[in-house]
Parts: sequence; C-alpha cells; structure tokens
Amino acid sequence: MTTATADSSNADIKSVLAAEFARFLPPDSIIADEETQKPYECDGLSMYCEMPLLVVLPETVAQVQQVLRLCHQRGVPVVARGAGTGLCAGAMPHSDGVLLSLAKFNRILDIDPLARTARLQPGVRNLAISEAAWPHGLYYGPDPSSQIACSIGGNVAENSGGVHCLKYGLTVHNLLQVEMITVEGERLVIGSAGLDSGGPDLLALITGSEGLLGVITEVTVKLLPMPEKAQVVMAAFDSVQTAGEAVSAVISRGIIPAGLEMMDEHAIVAAEAFVHAGYPTDAEALLLCEVDGTREEVEEHIQQVAGLFESMGASIRVSRDDAERALLWKGRKSAFPAVGRISPDYYCMDGTIPRGKLAHVLMAMQDMSAHYGLRVANVFHAGDGNLHPLILFDANMPGEFERAEAFGGKILELCVAVGGCITGEHGVGVEKIRQMAIQFGDAEIAQFHAIKAAFDPVGTLNPGKGIPVLKNCQEYRALKPDGMQPLSHVHGSTL
Amino acid sequence: MTTATADSSNADIKSVLAAEFARFLPPDSIIADEETQKPYECDGLSMYCEMPLLVVLPETVAQVQQVLRLCHQRGVPVVARGAGTGLCAGAMPHSDGVLLSLAKFNRILDIDPLARTARLQPGVRNLAISEAAWPHGLYYGPDPSSQIACSIGGNVAENSGGVHCLKYGLTVHNLLQVEMITVEGERLVIGSAGLDSGGPDLLALITGSEGLLGVITEVTVKLLPMPEKAQVVMAAFDSVQTAGEAVSAVISRGIIPAGLEMMDEHAIVAAEAFVHAGYPTDAEALLLCEVDGTREEVEEHIQQVAGLFESMGASIRVSRDDAERALLWKGRKSAFPAVGRISPDYYCMDGTIPRGKLAHVLMAMQDMSAHYGLRVANVFHAGDGNLHPLILFDANMPGEFERAEAFGGKILELCVAVGGCITGEHGVGVEKIRQMAIQFGDAEIAQFHAIKAAFDPVGTLNPGKGIPVLKNCQEYRALKPDGMQPLSHVHGSTL
Repeated sequence: MTTATADSSNADIKSVLAAEFARFLPPDSIIADEETQKPYECDGLSMYCEMPLLVVLPETVAQVQQVLRLCHQRGVPVVARGAGTGLCAGAMPHSDGVLLSLAKFNRILDIDPLARTARLQPGVRNLAISEAAWPHGLYYGPDPSSQIACSIGGNVAENSGGVHCLKYGLTVHNLLQVEMITVEGERLVIGSAGLDSGGPDLLALITGSEGLLGVITEVTVKLLPMPEKAQVVMAAFDSVQTAGEAVSAVISRGIIPAGLEMMDEHAIVAAEAFVHAGYPTDAEALLLCEVDGTREEVEEHIQQVAGLFESMGASIRVSRDDAERALLWKGRKSAFPAVGRISPDYYCMDGTIPRGKLAHVLMAMQDMSAHYGLRVANVFHAGDGNLHPLILFDANMPGEFERAEAFGGKILELCVAVGGCITGEHGVGVEKIRQMAIQFGDAEIAQFHAIKAAFDPVGTLNPGKGIPVLKNCQEYRALKPDGMQPLSHVHGSTL
Repeated sequence: MTTATADSSNADIKSVLAAEFARFLPPDSIIADEETQKPYECDGLSMYCEMPLLVVLPETVAQVQQVLRLCHQRGVPVVARGAGTGLCAGAMPHSDGVLLSLAKFNRILDIDPLARTARLQPGVRNLAISEAAWPHGLYYGPDPSSQIACSIGGNVAENSGGVHCLKYGLTVHNLLQVEMITVEGERLVIGSAGLDSGGPDLLALITGSEGLLGVITEVTVKLLPMPEKAQVVMAAFDSVQTAGEAVSAVISRGIIPAGLEMMDEHAIVAAEAFVHAGYPTDAEALLLCEVDGTREEVEEHIQQVAGLFESMGASIRVSRDDAERALLWKGRKSAFPAVGRISPDYYCMDGTIPRGKLAHVLMAMQDMSAHYGLRVANVFHAGDGNLHPLILFDANMPGEFERAEAFGGKILELCVAVGGCITGEHGVGVEKIRQMAIQFGDAEIAQFHAIKAAFDPVGTLNPGKGIPVLKNCQEYRALKPDGMQPLSHVHGSTL
C-alpha cells in the first residue's frame, strides 16, 4: 500500500517525515524514539503488535489536516488511534506508517440539556460524557466494558456497544453528527440534528469504518434521560440450554431489558472467586436481566421476568437496592480480568448469532474446546445474541497461541453458519479480516473496496484492516474443507 | 447522462430497447404506448412530470439484473419505482430512460414471529406487513400517511417516517437486511440479522438513496410487539408559541410519546370540516400526543402529559377508548385531503428543525405567507421537529405555481438556517436538489458524488436526482442575496 521505494530505508523516510512534521507540530507532538512509542504498538488485542515509523499527537484540526495531506502526498500509511482499548487490532500501527493519536482532542465542547446532546472532541472518554451529563439528569447510552478508558472517537470508529445496547443501541444509534477529515485534508460535516438528513447517509457509513475512510475530529451524540428506576434479576440455571431458551422467552414476552447477560460455569466460578458477588458456583449458566424505566414499569417487568425464570426451573435473586444491583453487575463487569486470573492469557472473541441458536452454539463450542484442547469461558450479551467467548491459553506454551487463533476463527465461522455475523461490537480490524470472506461474497467485498476508494483512492488510511483483498478471500474460501461458499449467497440464510 | 447520440431519435432507441427487452420479459411487462405509460409520469409530487421512453415491470430478480445490465451497457438511464406515492419527485421518469417498476414484486416471503422479522419483496405495501404480522401480536413500526398504498421498497429508497417515528424511528432504524442489484447486474446482500455486521455499513447508505445506488429486490424488516395499550391526549392552545413550548416540555420530562403531532388553525378548520373529529375550531394550535406501552406506563404518562398541557393553559381531551382515539387521529390523518378541499392545489413541504425553534419558524412562515400572497397550513410531526407546511395555491392562476415553489424553497432554507435540515422523511429527489447547496458545502457534495460513482460510475441510475451538480451548487449559492454559505461550515451551527 505504501509507495515508499525499496531503496529508501525506513530510517531515511522517518527522519524526513519527522522534519516535515516539525514545521507545524510542537516537539512533544512527535514521538520518534522506540521506547516512547512502545505503548502504541498494539490496541487492546495485544496478540497483534507492530511498531510505527512515527507517532504524532496533533492538537488542532488544522494539524490533523496537515498530517493527512502530507502523508497522502508521500504515500505514507496513517493509522488513527483513540484510547487504544479496541479489541480487533484496528488501531495496530503500520510498520511503514504514521500513528495518528487523537489523545489531545480531549475536550467536552458542549452539553445541551434541552436538546439532549453532547458535542465532543474524539478523545473524550466514554464515561466522562455521562459524568458531564449526570448533573442534568442525562447520560450517554452505549457502555463498553472499557468505558472508563475508551474514547468516543474510537467508539465511533468501531461502532462500540455494551451491556445496554440491547435496549439503547450501538454507537451508530446514538450519534447525530460527526466532523471528519478526509485523506486529502478536507473537512466534512456529516449528519444533522434531525432524524434524517439530505444526501447519502454517510453517518452510519463512517461509524464502524475503523479509520479506513477518514479521521474523526468531532462527535455529537444524543443523551438519554436517567431512568427513574433500574432493577436486576439474577437467575441460576442448571443447563445452558434452558438459560438460552429463557433469553428467547423474555424477548418473546415483549419485554426489552436494559441488559440481558449470560455467563457459563467457567466464567461464574472465575468471577465469584474474584469479586464475591454471591454467584452460585454450582450453576451451569447465570443470567443477569436488568430492567429500567418508570417505577411501575420496572416493578411489573421484574415480576414477569422473575416468574418466567422460576417457571423454567431457575433459582432467582432480585436486587433490593442499588448497592445490591451494583454488586450483581460487578461480577459480570469483572469477568474478563477474573478469567485472566485463572489463565496466563485469554483471547476474547466477538460474534453475533440469532438468539434462538444460543444453546446450539454454546454446545458446539464445548466440542471445539475439546478438539483444540483449550478451555473456553463464555460471558456475553445474550439478549442480542452477541457472544464473547474467552479462549484460555498460555502464550509461553508452543502452539497454544496458534491453536487459540484457529479456535477463534472457527467460532466466527460457526456464527456465520447459523445465520449470524463475525462481529457484534469489536469490529473487523486485522483479527477478523480473513473471516470476511466467509460472511461476504465477492460482489459485496468488491463494493466495499469501491466505497473505500471513494474516500481514499490510494489506500493511505489504515491499510490492511477491515476489508480483505479479493484474491485472499477466494484463496481462503478454497482452503475450507467443504469448499464453503459465502453464506450471504444462500437465499435468506442469514436470517 | 445518457450516451444516446443526437443522431438517434428517441423513437429509434425506444424500439431497439423494446425489442431487446422482449427477449427476456413477457409482453405485458413492457409498456411502450403513451396512454398506458401515463400513470407513471410522476410520483405523489405531481408538480414534476416526465414521460419515460419505456416502462418495464420485471417479475424476477434475474429479469431486474438483465434490465440493469442492458441499460447500463447502452447508457440508458433507469429510474426505479415502487408505488409512486413519494413526495420529492424521486421516482419521476427520465425522458430518455426506462422506468423500472417493482410492482410485480409483491409477495410477503416470510414472517418469523420468534425472530420478529418479515422478509418481503419490495412491492409489498407498508400496511400489508402489519396486517400479516397482527395475528402474531406484532406490527411494522414506520407508518407514512400513505401506508395503505406505499411499498416497502419505496420506503427504503426514501427512508420514510410517519407519525410514530418519534418513538420507533425511520425506516433505517427498522431494517435488518436488503438485497439489491447493482447497475452492473450484481446481486448484493447487505446487513445481517444482528445489530452489527462486518464491513462498511452499506445498509444505512442504501436506505434513503433514492434509487441512485442500486435497485432493491428484497427487504427484511424488524417487527415490533403490539403495545398493551395506547391512549391519546388532544390539547387545544390559543397560541402557536405555547404549543411549541409544550412539545419541548413533554420531551424534557423524559417521556417519549408514540406520536406528538401539531396542527395550526388552517389545518384544524379544514380537518374538522372534513371529518368532524370534534376539534376546537377556535384554537390557534392543536397537539395530539399519543402514549403507548404497558397499561401502568400509559396511565402514568397520560396523566403527566395532560397535567402539563393544562398547566400551560390548554384545554384538553383524553381518549376514553380505541374508537375515540381513532377519531382523534382521523382528523390528523385526513388533514392533507382536507386541505385539498379548501384549495385547488397544495404543495406539501418537508424539513426538520430543532424542537426549540418551532414557534420561531411557524411565525416566520406566517410572514413569508404574507410576502408570497399564499396561505400556508401546518400539519406536522412536532415531536421530532419534522415540519410539513402545506402551501395553498391555484395552478390555473398565472404565477401561483412558481410562487409556491419559491415559498417552499425559502422554508427549506429557513430550516437549515435555524440548525435543521432540508428533509425529514420525503427525501431530496428533484424537489430539493437545489437546497442541497445550502445544507452542504462543496467537500460534502463532492464526497456524495464519489459514493455515487462507487456504485454507478457512469450515472445510469436515476440521474439528476438527489445529489446536485457541484457547479450548480456554487451558482445557486452565488444567487442568494446574502451570498449565503453552506451552514454545515459554520462550526457547530447545525445543532
């Protein structure tokens, strides 16, 4: 993707670039030494690392425009980075490129309580938005587990979700407007204050585009009113199958919980040992179902949900106050680090399946676990079918990393095979780029490239991520034992 | 846009095309005579008419592919058409082109009550989806006023809304998957059963794309559970300003009504004379606020809303049963034909403004009404700031049509000036193409063209609609008395 010739060594390009950046960036906005660059070598998915040529941290929109123009002219790849908490290696640096950090764009520009909007620089942390909105009785809906650290620009780039996205949607459903800089340094304002806008809907296109189409420099989000009440039901099941059926049963009743999460026995045991939330460690599956809304609505729905779970054989516990509710959630929210305590390494996957296929997929994963000789713990957003299997491995044991990677890939293919897709909220990045060939056919992949070229004709922005090379797709499919065809081409199969 | 040479007369091209179509289309799928073509000369916005070369009505996806390939190869424009109820001339035929009607794609392919989805051919009528879903206690959310006639393919093409989109969103928020045929005849499957999908989000891009990017051949939508209860409050205000403030007040309370509609005095009088809903004809403004949900939730919210309106000086009436609720809505739903009875012609505009600007914009429209010497009646989705001013005129009076068109343009510019946008749910089409120059700058318009070219490089699909020629934008802006710059370039001004 880079036009740097084989003659010029990376060191030469690096010093030339650094000198050019120094004309418009302050010295502390250019990081050229390896030691200071080290924290930028990967995002939250530390399996994929790379050192960039240079890290730059512009402070103004004009500086972002200049960085992009310069790199575009010189054919130097640019990888934009928010807080680096992403989980698909979408922000992994390019070895011949510039890493553009938006960390200095960290100001909340405006909170409008009447319009219920927040205008933000991209480096503002997700939780900081809600903290600024709370005094007005408002909050920002999407709540990734990393919300204390992750930034809103990164949330837009990966279309992040969270525990509450079942009811309140992903980032794309909570956005009003984005300002972005094109690879040519042009400033685009996309979206509007209204539900609709004229012209092609670029807002959703930019959301989840993983830095492939432009660099986001401002984000306006919707704020939600704090619900009057929230309450959680914990239900312990002695079978994963019944827990899966209980998820479908809740939704079938017309109840949309604020969150509906499932944990399997490995995850329950690990979480309980870590935070002592009072989880029943002999359960095969645990559901946490939160309802929010008006006092009357919550009381009615909690009663219905609790009754339903009991009728399906679960033993239940209903939070009596906010302290107990927080405790019940603490186990779920700490599940990843808790699993980290029982295994040297773990690999968090992300895929989505139709709710009705939950039990089937969980069973199939148990078989795969035996096949690959690696344990798997499941903690996930059951309500919207978004799985997060944690594959446990030890990177110091020869072959375990490769087995974990292969196991993860198989899980994604299983998601597609049952009518789901290869991502729920983490994006594609480097991690899932091969599985794109399974979810999409050549016509769709070709169209993705055409869209990419409409923004970035020579491929300066985040090359090698998100959209696979067409030839690689064909090769990958050919390698499949069953000569698997992309499922989107089987009529109606993806639903 | 067409490459038909000046030498070949339209008649020649027409007969050549008709002969080629006859190879793969049955005779009754090709309409060549003017009389039978007549019903296709315009969409619901009958101010803009044009006769096509040919009308074709394919019956299979393969036929749609062949029509597109043939036209694309020969440089013949193609305009896709659903039920023809659109209101921006988006489906107006091209005089040198083929009108591709999807009327024969009228089958409901599948209703899945468990997954709560409906898989549909594009010609299925909006209301027919809900009718098929009702036996399962489900319905389809978006409800344009034309729902008895408009088709789901057209709804996707224009991203249609309706009375309930305040709570349940526009078409784009209720879509899961679309199958479309590219201009080259390739079949693309876009979207998935999950909240997210890999690759660039083409689903939202296709939604509202007005036939410029491809032809939709299948649509999968979400279905919603029927609410347990719905109730409506009618509130009569003696000032438009207070009614506007009441709209903001409801939303500020954290209540999201299923619908929140406003009518001004012209609309009230016309509707009451037509359907005798019991509207107070001496009121300056009428609000209809519907709440749906569980019994408890509805009772609580209705009490709050009614109390709020009363405290602001309104006289109120609350529906006691579904018959009364239907009657109160009947006036609103018949408002357009009712206004049609008091004026030979009317021109229905569509723009969106921030809720807080309602009173200001309604006042400004009164001034414009005096300036242009044309009456205006207002009936609109107040809750989401989506205006539908009806400009009354008589096409038989010299100059009235032109004054109505100019008045409408001014209203759109006012919407943009107060931080709104030029469409709410009707789209851009031919009608609003000039005002795109006011809402967007050259960089955005250029990006829209790049996106268009990524799907349709030579401009075969619906040329002349949706996205204005860049040069025309610059000329249009230069004509503005105040040398108006696109507002998206004033920092933060669009919010």
